[in-house]
Amino acid sequence: MSTSTNTRVVLQQYAPKDVHSPDFFSVERNQPIPDASLLKPGQVLVQVEALSIDPHQRRFIDSLDGQDFDKEKAFVYPLGQPITGIGAGVVIASGSNRFAIGDRVRSDEIPWQTYAVVADNTLIKLPQSSLPLTDYIGVLGMPAFTAYLGVVMVGQPKAGETLLVSAASGAVGQIVVQLAKARGLRVIGVAGSDDKVKYVKSLGADAVLNYKTCGDFVQALGEVAPEGIDIYFDNVGGEFLDAALLHLNTHARVVICGSMSTYAADKSEISGIKNLDTLIVKEVTLRSIYYLLHVGTAIEEDFLQEMAQLVEQGLVKFKTDVRVGLENAPQALADLFAGDNFGKLIVKTLAAVDE
Amino acid sequence: MSTSTNTRVVLQQYAPKDVHSPDFFSVERNQPIPDASLLKPGQVLVQVEALSIDPHQRRFIDSLDGQDFDKEKAFVYPLGQPITGIGAGVVIASGSNRFAIGDRVRSDEIPWQTYAVVADNTLIKLPQSSLPLTDYIGVLGMPAFTAYLGVVMVGQPKAGETLLVSAASGAVGQIVVQLAKARGLRVIGVAGSDDKVKYVKSLGADAVLNYKTCGDFVQALGEVAPEGIDIYFDNVGGEFLDAALLHLNTHARVVICGSMSTYAADKSEISGIKNLDTLIVKEVTLRSIYYLLHVGTAIEEDFLQEMAQLVEQGLVKFKTDVRVGLENAPQALADLFAGDNFGKLIVKTLAAVDE
Repeated sequence: MSTSTNTRVVLQQYAPKDVHSPDFFSVERNQPIPDASLLKPGQVLVQVEALSIDPHQRRFIDSLDGQDFDKEKAFVYPLGQPITGIGAGVVIASGSNRFAIGDRVRSDEIPWQTYAVVADNTLIKLPQSSLPLTDYIGVLGMPAFTAYLGVVMVGQPKAGETLLVSAASGAVGQIVVQLAKARGLRVIGVAGSDDKVKYVKSLGADAVLNYKTCGDFVQALGEVAPEGIDIYFDNVGGEFLDAALLHLNTHARVVICGSMSTYAADKSEISGIKNLDTLIVKEVTLRSIYYLLHVGTAIEEDFLQEMAQLVEQGLVKFKTDVRVGLENAPQALADLFAGDNFGKLIVKTLAAVDE
Repeated sequence: MSTSTNTRVVLQQYAPKDVHSPDFFSVERNQPIPDASLLKPGQVLVQVEALSIDPHQRRFIDSLDGQDFDKEKAFVYPLGQPITGIGAGVVIASGSNRFAIGDRVRSDEIPWQTYAVVADNTLIKLPQSSLPLTDYIGVLGMPAFTAYLGVVMVGQPKAGETLLVSAASGAVGQIVVQLAKARGLRVIGVAGSDDKVKYVKSLGADAVLNYKTCGDFVQALGEVAPEGIDIYFDNVGGEFLDAALLHLNTHARVVICGSMSTYAADKSEISGIKNLDTLIVKEVTLRSIYYLLHVGTAIEEDFLQEMAQLVEQGLVKFKTDVRVGLENAPQALADLFAGDNFGKLIVKTLAAVDE
């Protein structure tokens, strides 16, 4: 270790609705590094190198004032402590029989500090590879694992089939496009701007629809998928899903991965999915996926191995927006919601910079 | 053969909307039996013993006058000929190398006549058993095969799990209840009258909801399924499906088998399925099933064998409404739509009565 002190980014107050600012946090520098001799059984001391900045973190700092209290909002980050999220680092002391000094690890519960004590049951060991830890948050991170589960586990793709993906330029969608092309599928993407369409095409998609300018979406889909759709990777829900259902082939598979179009809406105002009845004679499978249910399983190992190979061979593009220095995490979170990022937001701490 | 002539029931005119009457057909008695010596390769002569009376047959005799012509309506039965449907009989002459005299067979394309020439590629051979052919239209017929595909192939049931089935007193639903009980599941049925509730309970269901009197359906479901639902066999769609989604357990399976609640409705008036977003963290599988895709496959053999055993052992109840005499088929079809039947409608021809 070259750095001898701990930096912590601490939540000071909850955020009013729609206010995006770094000022809800304070940065505490020159704090003591946790004493390795005080680790309890099952605890490890991790030098944190990369943190993921994600939408759910915003929800957990939202003020509840004036809002209806519901179950999903029941969890908030406590004040006066670093918030937690997905992160990766290196074990520098271990009270666990599963992790040794030098192991590279990832967890969904890494606190925003450069040296952290973490329970070993939240950690997975990362495989040996030449890739930096930021890759295990980015191109090998949760969005990519979600893409893998959908394309491989649910999609069961066969070369020559047609895959449709909505939000194709998003963190999940762009990996879906590339995994599907790597397996010999015809890939159709949907995106919402000409820039995004261009980017998705650069990833190898065979056709990309701009849903804002394509006219009648059901008809436009039929034109780019004249032989029908075998796999639909749905990141959006709502009317996109309903339209795709009309173009599915017999024994098609639908990955239910997100409902971005309906998250915020009052359910009484959602039009709802009306075309499920068209599926009966086609024997279609719809399956929702949630990466957390597969953390630490064999399919995660398959994913990490296969994706690392593709990345090492330069076969996968993935846009990241890396901010250097833990103290910039609050601004990164604010930028995520202001849309001031292009690509997956990652904070690279300086804990390991001077090694 | 004891009877020496053929009886045919012939469609004379298409039926106006909502008019249910036997008068659209004429009965032609004392017609010649097809000449066995004129059978072409692949044709067999079948002595028809049992016919299934089904809803789709009505759609195919509906007049198109004044209606919007759509693809689904593009098929109608031709006038001046017997209509066709699911039926069973015995091979009495064969030009096929797959069927021999004496084989018991079933087809989806049996014409309404007592002796019929049938193409062998529409036929399946029925296994040896002590059961009459009417059982292969009734308790071992299409509704039961549909139930089997849903419970066994999609449901992958494990003893102790909870299965919910809507339209539980229907042709499919009542088999679902009994198959699920035979596999050690906790079974909850939904039905629409006190009589139906009583009948479903008599089949072994652990709890049955009358959706017309149970008050708030979502809440009532929660009360009878406090540990959540592992398999939902959906015969109804619409709001029933949306309510069930809220009570699914992680890795639940949903069988999409029908949309009775939405068949007739103008799609702009359907509320649609709004709760798919709740599935994401539960990794639920929804799969539609269509028995025709499995005719002649290994799973159909499994089904016929397993169900025949259960029936022979007296372990399966199935309400049938058997009309005797082919000439009563038109009245049976009219009764189906007037609701004047209790149980699966089957016509037993008299072709074999005097054997």
